[in-house]
Amino acid sequence: MLSQPPARPGSSLFVSFEGPEGAGKSTQIGRLLRRLESAGRPHTVTREPGGTPLGTRVREVLLDPDLTIDPLPEFLLYSASRAQLVANVIRPALGRGEVVVCDRYADSSLAYQGAGRGLDAELLRGITAAATGGLWPHLTVLLDLDPKLGLERAARRGQPDRLERADLAFHQRLRQGFLELAAAEPGRFMVLDATRNEAELEHAVWAAVQSLLPDVDR
Amino acid sequence: MLSQPPARPGSSLFVSFEGPEGAGKSTQIGRLLRRLESAGRPHTVTREPGGTPLGTRVREVLLDPDLTIDPLPEFLLYSASRAQLVANVIRPALGRGEVVVCDRYADSSLAYQGAGRGLDAELLRGITAAATGGLWPHLTVLLDLDPKLGLERAARRGQPDRLERADLAFHQRLRQGFLELAAAEPGRFMVLDATRNEAELEHAVWAAVQSLLPDVDR
Repeated sequence: MLSQPPARPGSSLFVSFEGPEGAGKSTQIGRLLRRLESAGRPHTVTREPGGTPLGTRVREVLLDPDLTIDPLPEFLLYSASRAQLVANVIRPALGRGEVVVCDRYADSSLAYQGAGRGLDAELLRGITAAATGGLWPHLTVLLDLDPKLGLERAARRGQPDRLERADLAFHQRLRQGFLELAAAEPGRFMVLDATRNEAELEHAVWAAVQSLLPDVDR
Repeated sequence: MLSQPPARPGSSLFVSFEGPEGAGKSTQIGRLLRRLESAGRPHTVTREPGGTPLGTRVREVLLDPDLTIDPLPEFLLYSASRAQLVANVIRPALGRGEVVVCDRYADSSLAYQGAGRGLDAELLRGITAAATGGLWPHLTVLLDLDPKLGLERAARRGQPDRLERADLAFHQRLRQGFLELAAAEPGRFMVLDATRNEAELEHAVWAAVQSLLPDVDR
């Protein structure tokens, strides 16, 4: 990375990937990162929950299948991890003019704890605004997938975690929640059919990122 | 406890203890519990952060001196622990007509993260209202102590934790914060000088509890 020219702070970009378990977020994030590397574009990749030492600890708590966690404390734990991530990782990287790629962000809380678990959307938005200081991605890639297909994909990868073991009706509300978020902010969201082949999806994501980074070589 | 008559649900009482480290909360809670035992009064004792399996895990995170935790995520972690505690422990115990004794409650967040760390009071109150469903103690015993004395007492008990290592100015803001909370709700708070002897403090606390439990034998 030493040979790269210093990034202009104005060239920063915040991209999040959303969607259910098994939609292929990790694969597409990996492909986007390789594109950014090839383009010589400084970038930071992170994820929620996690991304900081605090977030890693909170992640362990959230994904522990032996713990009882009600929807509201669950949301507050995600928000705590998010607040630390925004302050310590995302804002500093954007300040350096980097492309920040985040595996899940606040839309996941709005979909999982709001549409999925039934918490009040206004409450979630108010606490999220406080936790993030109002920071939202410039681009959110939603990998949309029928819940039945997503659960099959996740199960094939090994032991299901707490989220994955939740029931199908929950996952259907979740999908609907994500689609409603996307419909409300069409300028930020790009909704992609997660069953399309990986190369096609990569191409669509990269085209969207390029359109927001006009100085990237085409 | 089997020989006790069933408690009337209407006889429930929620008592919290607040104050800085080293003020003697644990001692006074222990003395109150013995009084409640002697009076044959069903009770539940708990603490913040902690009190549930989730709270215990969150407590470990909060008190880990190696973690960087900003004031807002710190507050959100306390709120997550509190929400689970209210739902799983405090409300059920009150519903059974018990006396609930809690070592710290939401006033600690208002004092520590508000007055101490400078977070906006309205934000803290809004999130606290959501986390607790608006549940506040009937009686809050504030053990008030000059910060210099409190830090000396805590240091004498062993290794200081993250909270205890914070500076004196912080502890002075904290004391002021607690006193302002008490002044704003004189009907709920009882402020006691923590330097008084333990038996005197025990007597004052028990008198206040008795006044709220008219069917306790005097």
